[in-house]
Amino acid sequence: MIHRRGVYSVEAVDVDVIVEQVRLALASGQWDDAVALVEALRPPDQADLFSDLPPAEQDQLLPRLDLEDSADILEELEEEEAAEIACRLELEDLAAIVDEMEPDEAADLLGDIPPEQASEVLAAMTEPEEVRPLLVHADDTAGGLMTSAPFVLHRGMTAADAIAYLRGIAPDSEDFYYLYIVDEDMHLVGVVSLRQLIVAPPSADLETIMDMEVFQVEASADQEEAARLMARYGLMALPVVDSAGRLIGRITHDDLVDVLEEEATEDIYRLGGVPEEHPPDVPFPVALRTRLPWLVVNLGTAMASAAILSLFEGTIARIAALAAFFPIVAGVAGSAGTQTMTVTVRGLALGEVDPRDGLRALAREFLIGSVNGLTVGLLVALVALIWKGSPMLGVVVGLATLINLVGAAIAGVTVPLGMQVAKVDPALASPILVTTITDTLGYFIYLGLATLVLLPLI
Amino acid sequence: MIHRRGVYSVEAVDVDVIVEQVRLALASGQWDDAVALVEALRPPDQADLFSDLPPAEQDQLLPRLDLEDSADILEELEEEEAAEIACRLELEDLAAIVDEMEPDEAADLLGDIPPEQASEVLAAMTEPEEVRPLLVHADDTAGGLMTSAPFVLHRGMTAADAIAYLRGIAPDSEDFYYLYIVDEDMHLVGVVSLRQLIVAPPSADLETIMDMEVFQVEASADQEEAARLMARYGLMALPVVDSAGRLIGRITHDDLVDVLEEEATEDIYRLGGVPEEHPPDVPFPVALRTRLPWLVVNLGTAMASAAILSLFEGTIARIAALAAFFPIVAGVAGSAGTQTMTVTVRGLALGEVDPRDGLRALAREFLIGSVNGLTVGLLVALVALIWKGSPMLGVVVGLATLINLVGAAIAGVTVPLGMQVAKVDPALASPILVTTITDTLGYFIYLGLATLVLLPLI
Repeated sequence: MIHRRGVYSVEAVDVDVIVEQVRLALASGQWDDAVALVEALRPPDQADLFSDLPPAEQDQLLPRLDLEDSADILEELEEEEAAEIACRLELEDLAAIVDEMEPDEAADLLGDIPPEQASEVLAAMTEPEEVRPLLVHADDTAGGLMTSAPFVLHRGMTAADAIAYLRGIAPDSEDFYYLYIVDEDMHLVGVVSLRQLIVAPPSADLETIMDMEVFQVEASADQEEAARLMARYGLMALPVVDSAGRLIGRITHDDLVDVLEEEATEDIYRLGGVPEEHPPDVPFPVALRTRLPWLVVNLGTAMASAAILSLFEGTIARIAALAAFFPIVAGVAGSAGTQTMTVTVRGLALGEVDPRDGLRALAREFLIGSVNGLTVGLLVALVALIWKGSPMLGVVVGLATLINLVGAAIAGVTVPLGMQVAKVDPALASPILVTTITDTLGYFIYLGLATLVLLPLI
Repeated sequence: MIHRRGVYSVEAVDVDVIVEQVRLALASGQWDDAVALVEALRPPDQADLFSDLPPAEQDQLLPRLDLEDSADILEELEEEEAAEIACRLELEDLAAIVDEMEPDEAADLLGDIPPEQASEVLAAMTEPEEVRPLLVHADDTAGGLMTSAPFVLHRGMTAADAIAYLRGIAPDSEDFYYLYIVDEDMHLVGVVSLRQLIVAPPSADLETIMDMEVFQVEASADQEEAARLMARYGLMALPVVDSAGRLIGRITHDDLVDVLEEEATEDIYRLGGVPEEHPPDVPFPVALRTRLPWLVVNLGTAMASAAILSLFEGTIARIAALAAFFPIVAGVAGSAGTQTMTVTVRGLALGEVDPRDGLRALAREFLIGSVNGLTVGLLVALVALIWKGSPMLGVVVGLATLINLVGAAIAGVTVPLGMQVAKVDPALASPILVTTITDTLGYFIYLGLATLVLLPLI
């Protein structure tokens, strides 16, 4: 049960209900009512509501909201959607809203709209200088994630100086729990938390209370690398430096959460055969564009198994009962391969598995595959014996299952580790490769054994 | 590139190298060297190193570390491993270490060791009162995640009072960016950030600067619900209240990161057919216990497909060429079903998909399935025509592929939504159900069509 004082709902706000109220208000021209309904919400709920409105109503509503709410909404919306709405706005309106946005979010938005429009917006902004330097960094780097770090402290200050300085500039952002101390060349020399500033004697020099061991990343570092570092060491912010080591920005805890979620979602999508993440309500053509080509690739790999089966057509024609065990032989090996692959891929993503541990992992999975293979193989053999009444068929399917489960274990651990070494995302290519290996190998071993053992008996 | 001042390594610390140095030092009895190597590391690296040591060396090292480092290590280790090590410690040593741990981590550890030992530890601790109240909450609830919130402010205070109070108690935890304001009954009435305290005029009453809209969760709430709320609204801490609304603790940002990672890992494992998450280097029997039963369940469902195939044994015996297309018909439909299911399951987990949007989602996926089916079906038909030279076989496999891809799309969206409504984790049961549906349906449609269309022709 989640309470929010004043609202006292047991759930988070039910946006769907408010959407209907807003649409009614818009339809009857009661702009103030519509605006009041939106402004009573928190930014993530405002964005959800906005996203549920048809474009025409979005365009009616947005210019009537105050700039801060408009900026919040564009920050919270999915990137594509924010860019679409931005493109429909008047230049001056858009520039005013972008001026209100957090610099890192503003830079992301400007990167998503046509370059000429972005230049015009920058020219029309009153404070473009916070955003402009952020535009040079690629979206998926630490630099693309950071926001500029205007509040820095200097070495000569005392705790009281620092507090007085902060009180003077009265920053309105909540994201500066850590304060960075720089030398005259903007090189990072230390970090101090607000807690330390408050707890220290007012006359203490910053140099005596600051922590000189500061984690930092270069702007060109991968955003996932930065997020992993923050997650591992429990950092609420991470300073970003340029190639000369000068402080140019900081990554905040909400960015960390976003990156971790994005990264997990990307892995889940890729393991599920969807190469590019997209929101669940993505337009139909986009969904098709990301999924159809992958199915065609799958079709190609299924052809490999088809070729194996075709090779043994003679055996199948003479012992049609063999076909009944195809789903078992291929399916169980596929499941076992997927299990091993999943554990390995996630372990690699979390940094818990390293390709250098490859041999140890292989030995373990080989052992697991062998025990699984003996157990499931025995079960399958019993099924074949009881169902089809043929001991030799039982031996063939049981033995094939044992060999296939061992093969699946080997493929499930070597494929993702190999991908990692080859610098290909293990989540992307592993599922299709592992399935192709377990399928073709599965059919080949099973039908090969059947041809060797069973065919001479009939 | 990640820099850490003083260490200046381009990567995070390479624990493997230090492990070897520590082991050498332990082997030659140079305890001080071993301790110095460990104490130079940050807690997550200390835990990694510790985890790589054999139990005998862990037992040599731990009593020689200072209490704070020992506490950090037990906090950072995987739960099972921490519990194992704790069980091997002397009662007094363990009690002293647990006294140093964060209360929420201490409670987790005490919950993981035998109850009698936990009682003895509590009795031997000097400060059991911070930990004891946390023991009543289940591990996966907000209460199980929270740490106690000893620093509260009161309504009558000014900003200067609050700062003086904080300076007086000089808390050593970094986790109190937000300060909660309570009334005389410990009911939460507002929240103020350290930033607000510093920026406000010193004489300002807390009541005039505090935010009265405080998100809060009850201790019995699901930990994922609490984490979702923090992630959605960008909260760095979330206060936890008892059923009477009294403040009893807070969830901090590092807990949020842990829960989100844990949750994503659980979903990835379950979607990959591993019902319970385990560390990649889990002992062999545990890995077997989580994976083997699931393979046996898979075997059971594969039997359903086997039964369908067995039903059509006569058709297969007469047209053995049909078998070559089994991997294509079942494989591509399986991939398409997995794609749709993955998007739906992740959308449900992130709160972006709601079962109430079910019809809209179904319509979309039906459309995607139809276009995918037409495209891939046509390709498969062409392959059959060119490879096997049979136009009618082409029609049968093409048509079967079309129908199967539409069926896969419907199963991929309805199964996870149905699970969600039935309050079963969609990630757990969806993969096996969707695969079973696409497989059995796939074989049935394909062989049924073949029996109707092709059999009369020969």
